[in-house]
Amino acid sequence: IPSILLLGVIYMAYVLIGGLVFWNLEGDLGRKDIELLLQSKNRLLKTYTCLNQEGLEDLAQVFIDASKRGLSVKGNHTTDGFWKFTSSAVFAATVVTTIGYGNMSPSSTAGQIFCVFFALFGIPLNVVVLNRVGKYMLAIVKNICTLLEGKTKHKKCACVSVHLVSYLSGVVLFFLVPMTVFQQQEGWSYSQAIYYCFITLSTVGFGDFVADNNPDKVYPEWYSVLMTSWIFFGLAWLSLLINHSIDLLE
Amino acid sequence: IPSILLLGVIYMAYVLIGGLVFWNLEGDLGRKDIELLLQSKNRLLKTYTCLNQEGLEDLAQVFIDASKRGLSVKGNHTTDGFWKFTSSAVFAATVVTTIGYGNMSPSSTAGQIFCVFFALFGIPLNVVVLNRVGKYMLAIVKNICTLLEGKTKHKKCACVSVHLVSYLSGVVLFFLVPMTVFQQQEGWSYSQAIYYCFITLSTVGFGDFVADNNPDKVYPEWYSVLMTSWIFFGLAWLSLLINHSIDLLE
Repeated sequence: IPSILLLGVIYMAYVLIGGLVFWNLEGDLGRKDIELLLQSKNRLLKTYTCLNQEGLEDLAQVFIDASKRGLSVKGNHTTDGFWKFTSSAVFAATVVTTIGYGNMSPSSTAGQIFCVFFALFGIPLNVVVLNRVGKYMLAIVKNICTLLEGKTKHKKCACVSVHLVSYLSGVVLFFLVPMTVFQQQEGWSYSQAIYYCFITLSTVGFGDFVADNNPDKVYPEWYSVLMTSWIFFGLAWLSLLINHSIDLLE
Repeated sequence: IPSILLLGVIYMAYVLIGGLVFWNLEGDLGRKDIELLLQSKNRLLKTYTCLNQEGLEDLAQVFIDASKRGLSVKGNHTTDGFWKFTSSAVFAATVVTTIGYGNMSPSSTAGQIFCVFFALFGIPLNVVVLNRVGKYMLAIVKNICTLLEGKTKHKKCACVSVHLVSYLSGVVLFFLVPMTVFQQQEGWSYSQAIYYCFITLSTVGFGDFVADNNPDKVYPEWYSVLMTSWIFFGLAWLSLLINHSIDLLE
């Protein structure tokens, strides 16, 4: 029991200290945001003289509801909304991987109930597939290892360097390359792009940044394919890392 | 290789069929939403004659930005925004558990970078703690098992029923009770409440429904404590279920 209690205390402390840091880092920004909003509100009330407080609330309700459904009031026509076939398939993928960006989510009762059952079988399937792919990737690395071990005198050294190279190429392939691509295609800063990569592959998935999702941008053909492969193999690589750690421990 | 390919095909098919179903279930709703938005837009333009298309876009930008920062234009004063200490701690907890609702997320560069490192160490810590608690819960069930086995002739039967009871009480405690509580406190329908429970405990975490987060509601004192315990022990219970499945397989 004591070790569980100690672990629990460390865990609680970690979360609370994290909360404290976020509070400090974002709280000031929050106060500035409030000031900015009040300024904007006054500006709007002065510019559009037919509006009063009730009018503002009325308009805000319409815009926020529309925004939550992926609709925009920009332009003379509205956008198609979120639920095209491609975006629905991407949504399904974010459910089974438990990323769950939440930029789109089912709003009908039927959609919500289907989502529960879809996730119930999809999440375990996803775990099994990623583990398999991860183990397969590990087997390839081990084969290269054995191959090199036969050709060199420094056996230990060869194997360590193969693992190191595969680890580093994973970091480059799943973090540095996507970071550069997202920075250019989405117009995010480098820190925003690496934040997005990490939040996605860790399956936290806030949905504050989502690639391939800006209605005002035209993306190249290969973009959505690249993004899907990145998520799939990136998650498999992380699964490999975890498998590998277990492998080393045993 | 063939078994991996087969698994990959099943996985792809599962995701694509899921996408197809979501597209069908939500697409119609999307078209209705577009019509409703166009109607609202026309109504707004007629009611507030000082507004034109540019005015609408101008207002929409302000409201949507404010809404993304947890600010509301309702009332004469704005709300405090998301980043109070309690909500920051809850946010930190949703990061380490990878739920990541995304109803609040760091918008400063410092906050985003801290978030990456916080998750990097927090997620493994969370996995370790939940596994420990899950194993501890399993040990308790097994102890009850052994205790009952000594007192009855039907050994197999006693153990199976203990596992069945613990499984059922988990479902009641982590799905049915929270569902009822959320239905009453948040004013959600039962299907929305069970959808929220499932999306949270599976760590998908869309953030379309978030408990203890409605600025227009006054929640009872015990509510946030109950919610945090529910998430923690619910996740530990799921970890126990997974551990148990592995236990049975080996």
